[in-house]
Amino acid sequence: MTDWRTSLTDIGPNRILVRGYPLDEVMGRASFGETIYLLLTGELPSPAISRLIEAMLVSFIDHGATPPSTLSARNAATTGSSLRSSVAAGILAFGPHHGGDILACRARIDEALTHMHGGLSMQAAADTLTARMLASAEIPPPGFGHRHHTKDPRASRLLQLALELGVDGNYTQMLRAIERSLAKHPDLASRPMPINVDGAIAAVSGDAGLSPEIADALLLISRVPGLAAHSLEEQAREAPMRTIDPTHHAYDGPAARRLSGRRK
Amino acid sequence: MTDWRTSLTDIGPNRILVRGYPLDEVMGRASFGETIYLLLTGELPSPAISRLIEAMLVSFIDHGATPPSTLSARNAATTGSSLRSSVAAGILAFGPHHGGDILACRARIDEALTHMHGGLSMQAAADTLTARMLASAEIPPPGFGHRHHTKDPRASRLLQLALELGVDGNYTQMLRAIERSLAKHPDLASRPMPINVDGAIAAVSGDAGLSPEIADALLLISRVPGLAAHSLEEQAREAPMRTIDPTHHAYDGPAARRLSGRRK
Amino acid sequence: MTDWRTSLTDIGPNRILVRGYPLDEVMGRASFGETIYLLLTGELPSPAISRLIEAMLVSFIDHGATPPSTLSARNAATTGSSLRSSVAAGILAFGPHHGGDILACRARIDEALTHMHGGLSMQAAADTLTARMLASAEIPPPGFGHRHHTKDPRASRLLQLALELGVDGNYTQMLRAIERSLAKHPDLASRPMPINVDGAIAAVSGDAGLSPEIADALLLISRVPGLAAHSLEEQAREAPMRTIDPTHHAYDGPAARRLSGRRK
Amino acid sequence: MTDWRTSLTDIGPNRILVRGYPLDEVMGRASFGETIYLLLTGELPSPAISRLIEAMLVSFIDHGATPPSTLSARNAATTGSSLRSSVAAGILAFGPHHGGDILACRARIDEALTHMHGGLSMQAAADTLTARMLASAEIPPPGFGHRHHTKDPRASRLLQLALELGVDGNYTQMLRAIERSLAKHPDLASRPMPINVDGAIAAVSGDAGLSPEIADALLLISRVPGLAAHSLEEQAREAPMRTIDPTHHAYDGPAARRLSGRRK
Repeated sequence: MTDWRTSLTDIGPNRILVRGYPLDEVMGRASFGETIYLLLTGELPSPAISRLIEAMLVSFIDHGATPPSTLSARNAATTGSSLRSSVAAGILAFGPHHGGDILACRARIDEALTHMHGGLSMQAAADTLTARMLASAEIPPPGFGHRHHTKDPRASRLLQLALELGVDGNYTQMLRAIERSLAKHPDLASRPMPINVDGAIAAVSGDAGLSPEIADALLLISRVPGLAAHSLEEQAREAPMRTIDPTHHAYDGPAARRLSGRRK
Repeated sequence: MTDWRTSLTDIGPNRILVRGYPLDEVMGRASFGETIYLLLTGELPSPAISRLIEAMLVSFIDHGATPPSTLSARNAATTGSSLRSSVAAGILAFGPHHGGDILACRARIDEALTHMHGGLSMQAAADTLTARMLASAEIPPPGFGHRHHTKDPRASRLLQLALELGVDGNYTQMLRAIERSLAKHPDLASRPMPINVDGAIAAVSGDAGLSPEIADALLLISRVPGLAAHSLEEQAREAPMRTIDPTHHAYDGPAARRLSGRRK
Repeated sequence: MTDWRTSLTDIGPNRILVRGYPLDEVMGRASFGETIYLLLTGELPSPAISRLIEAMLVSFIDHGATPPSTLSARNAATTGSSLRSSVAAGILAFGPHHGGDILACRARIDEALTHMHGGLSMQAAADTLTARMLASAEIPPPGFGHRHHTKDPRASRLLQLALELGVDGNYTQMLRAIERSLAKHPDLASRPMPINVDGAIAAVSGDAGLSPEIADALLLISRVPGLAAHSLEEQAREAPMRTIDPTHHAYDGPAARRLSGRRK
Repeated sequence: MTDWRTSLTDIGPNRILVRGYPLDEVMGRASFGETIYLLLTGELPSPAISRLIEAMLVSFIDHGATPPSTLSARNAATTGSSLRSSVAAGILAFGPHHGGDILACRARIDEALTHMHGGLSMQAAADTLTARMLASAEIPPPGFGHRHHTKDPRASRLLQLALELGVDGNYTQMLRAIERSLAKHPDLASRPMPINVDGAIAAVSGDAGLSPEIADALLLISRVPGLAAHSLEEQAREAPMRTIDPTHHAYDGPAARRLSGRRK
């Protein structure tokens, strides 16, 4: 009796088919990022989408020692918990206020696109959204502003890549229109609210044809290496059961260096 | 006052340096798999190591609906838990008996290599290890045998890739020597014990110069997309609060298809 | 510099004050259930509330091997994960559809009480709620009906205890009024929808003066012993890495026995 | 087909038997602490054991805002994660170095008891253990010393209760003998190493006939209310996504007060 079905992976004796492809054929022919896309969407990405997805996954891989998720993982690691437990503790500290802006920003862009499809120009639709968000005190809006950055380098790069690769459509254009609305609004003159990495991922994933759920899953997947690296470093470098001060620490890794010549 | 240090990521205003590289320069130039390697080891991989790491990450990305980790994630998802909670529940079901063979197999290979460095030939060293494992009832040894596969296609492919890329050294050669020892041992004649994916990853990661802890972290990272995909599918396709039968289900995704022409 | 405050526990050298009481004085003088109440609400309970809280905590302590939360814990335990990891995996499988009815049922009772405070009789208020829930397809309503029980023995007992202890007020009375509404409604004649344990806890905790958040926390706390017991039993009695069939198992503990003579 | 068995809880229509007792009969007749004991051991406790178990569960219920487990829960809560996710994150930060001393201390006492059963006096057996621990740098030994307390008030009270209730046997007596060994040892003259709460629980649970696994489970269960209380307080009192400083905070709950007159 078969009582339920899955469309992800078919397992038989000496056979593992991911979305129909033999996993051993995928190995060495598609990258990890491409196979993530295959598993989540059902198909391998085009070269342009592939490059964008890799960049998206890279953009969120780590943000230093201060995010609550990283502190949660390090607090688990300092007690001697396993790598798995420490990473899981870190994942559980990605609540709606931390990494949750992708879903929320996507919903705002969709709201503005609805105004545009109703007949407004793109900028007028963005202005309507901005006025509505100001009225409901949704400022800074999801996808804009950052605790540390006045200009989030990851956002600029992701949007530029989308442009270069021809993947910038309604979502990224509307995101920029909202940014212009915010910049010119008299009530917000003193508060710069640039696009942040969550906003850029929300828009670019929309233009890449990903559902909000899959974009959100990509974000979660992309930060796991960061949580793992901090958990390993905590146990390798620090004394057990230490009190982890979230502010008084410093970076002592390799000095700043350039990667410009390299092209994947 | 600076009371502790991290060598992973340097955060400053409008600047994110991962192991010294500006993250926005890495985006679009290095893949997700290469950036994982950079974050964990401190350097970007050579082209050969890069291809091997990607294949290793792909090899473990999913194994269908029956592993306990996948069932744990699906049991969380069926109650309406968030993607993050479901994935964390899945990670917590990667105990020592599930995905733990990489560390154990690596230790066995190291044990045999110690015999070899003590003067034995590679095969004699492998035979010595096999005799010792038989005496302590460590059969099947970690890295050999599989519940579903008599010949694990992922293991064969990973070892072949290592050979093609010139990354096969003492670890993979010793793994094969142990396989030969097991195959020829009279007590094990009726029990084929082929190298499984954990064994292949253990050996290949050794020859690629990765520490056991980093190889273990790669394994954990590589399965997160599978856990996320099953959690999303559970909530998209099935009724809430269902009883999840781990055996009576079927695959209904794309039919078997080939990928041979593609080359990353 | 003091930058934040907590009102729970004061730690000084050789001194631990929980809500002002020296923890060593509480030990031996208040029960675990009473101290949970102290920690969550700030005060020790009266004798009547104490007895009710203990019964509430007992009512939810375990429900056998089939709930998704228990299966998630057992799937972690079978892989050799630690007790802590297995219990955490179980907790993560308490999503909105599993144990979430307490908050939802409490909200429905509050909705009916608002009708009553607006001038309706209690029964008319319950009937208004029932009609509204039928119109919005909220049937069975949260707090009513059960997969296994047509008459949930825990619900009856908890409501009877509240009556005996004089703690039954508007919440429990309204819960019963809603039950009568459901029973007499012509569209639901063939579907008995008795009060379940979630509904009873929702109502009784309301009359006991607990906020919905604290009632929800009590529920979570109360099931942890069940998750721990199943995790320990899984590792003590079963082979590692087994496939856990959620339906084909049987109880082999002590035969049915009575406790009637005992009084705490 | 029945393919596995459980001895914990028997579920039938309108019937829930925990270790044979109808759960609705247990409600109101046994406390939560007693029912935890029933579920974990199979029988209800005697009155003396009951009082000791309640005190043991109370002793570990919370230790303020600084333990890594509490910080992990609060770091999850500040991101808007659910109560369940925050509590799970807290549990995952109970690694071997945090709350793990119960199992380790129990093993040390067992080691000394083995010397005693081999013919040594109790004190000589304790001295032998102390000498062995000094030689292997196991100082402070598990169960002795504390970051905050030179005399742990919970340990004194638990041992005194065990004495009053006639439950102090070989384990508690040996624990005190080890404390004397440490106090009189010339190498440790300047380092007072009093029994801590983990040591007291390890010994008392031994004399109460609990297995180490069950004592460890009791410890985990006992701290869940503390993790829940901190998670709720974090979301009720603090701004989302704050940086949680583990040192600069103060207690602002009820002033110190006495409970002496009360007797459970």
